[in-house]
Amino acid sequence: MSRPPPRGCLYGLGVGPGDPELLTLKALRLLRAAPVVAYPAPEEGESFARRIVAQWLRAQQHEIALRFPMRPGPPPASSYERAAAALEAPLAEGSDVALLCQGDPLFYGSFIGIFARLSGGYRVEIVPGVSSLTACAGRAGHPLASGDEVLSVIPATLEEDELARRIAAADSAAIVKLGRHFAKLRRVLQRLSLLDATLYVERATLAAERVLPIAEVAPESVPYFAMALLRRGPAPR
Amino acid sequence: MSRPPPRGCLYGLGVGPGDPELLTLKALRLLRAAPVVAYPAPEEGESFARRIVAQWLRAQQHEIALRFPMRPGPPPASSYERAAAALEAPLAEGSDVALLCQGDPLFYGSFIGIFARLSGGYRVEIVPGVSSLTACAGRAGHPLASGDEVLSVIPATLEEDELARRIAAADSAAIVKLGRHFAKLRRVLQRLSLLDATLYVERATLAAERVLPIAEVAPESVPYFAMALLRRGPAPR
Repeated sequence: MSRPPPRGCLYGLGVGPGDPELLTLKALRLLRAAPVVAYPAPEEGESFARRIVAQWLRAQQHEIALRFPMRPGPPPASSYERAAAALEAPLAEGSDVALLCQGDPLFYGSFIGIFARLSGGYRVEIVPGVSSLTACAGRAGHPLASGDEVLSVIPATLEEDELARRIAAADSAAIVKLGRHFAKLRRVLQRLSLLDATLYVERATLAAERVLPIAEVAPESVPYFAMALLRRGPAPR
Repeated sequence: MSRPPPRGCLYGLGVGPGDPELLTLKALRLLRAAPVVAYPAPEEGESFARRIVAQWLRAQQHEIALRFPMRPGPPPASSYERAAAALEAPLAEGSDVALLCQGDPLFYGSFIGIFARLSGGYRVEIVPGVSSLTACAGRAGHPLASGDEVLSVIPATLEEDELARRIAAADSAAIVKLGRHFAKLRRVLQRLSLLDATLYVERATLAAERVLPIAEVAPESVPYFAMALLRRGPAPR
């Protein structure tokens, strides 16, 4: 009887927030070496993670688009099951797979659901990336945390009172996943008298980037990938 | 009268957690182009940030070591004043300066105090880096946050009851700056029945890296650059 072929390795590659130059040397090396490149994508249209690295893809690489619904709320478990199954096919045949992850793989992203399903059966190596957290802070010139400060990363998807409670309890806060939750966030910040202390960053490190006081933002224009940054005390020196 | 020379730009370059391959393409480009390279260093001995990029430094680059005391507690304001003054000299003469920042510039680091002193008078560009946060999570295979989870980054330097209060209130927590605060953290985790739920990561992405359950760690061996990772609920799927 012949032995089964060795299994491939799944590389979870953080490709950074958007500027292709924010890729790490390691992610670039592993991306170039992988026979199979996979990435999350909307049900129709382009993958943002793929766009970040498009200039380095080769025609010989087999590409797998993992389609996730762009409806509000978390993707259904079936999306993750389907994505994991699509990656298992090449992995079981012994092919390494580079799975592109916008920002960092383990900081709010679809990689987490795929990792949970495949890490038991396959070797997985995670390459950390520049997250939206540090990218937005850098573009805004906003220190995330210093000294004894606690930094809270808070999804705007929380229910309004809970969102207010979490922000009120934070020394320094980054509020993520704004999009259709923006009007709620604005009400909360107003209620906490934090509206004037909060910066807004949209599409950080891309050509369409915007950085402005949150009080000046029109709610209907806010994408999902926007962040609010604030601290309650004075800026650290 | 002749005009003063144009002022140089201060580049705050995140150089990542330790593995030189986790440098970004952008940080590498700006590092190579800079006539002056500065970095924080202990009062005696080598700079960790410099060591990360040592292979790319050129003999023609002028180097400035910014000495910070390694005593416990935050560095005195005078250290920052001295560092800012040392960088002002080349900047005022029109030289760009690449200031190396371990991890990310705005995530707990000496860059913040320098930025506060120089950003009023000089152009500063911040290049985000891979932070210890995402690097430790990647090495531990530990999702930082998913869905509606709030992520709290908590310095172990906090007073014991405050540390306990912050950890007890977190969905998912990364506890940073362990070092001599480790025994206190262990007591807190025991008190909160979280000892078995917590992973410990030391020197992430370096050859001497260790990842293990925190219950197995000997307190006297813990360096400042170690992190604890935990979540209270089940791991996200």
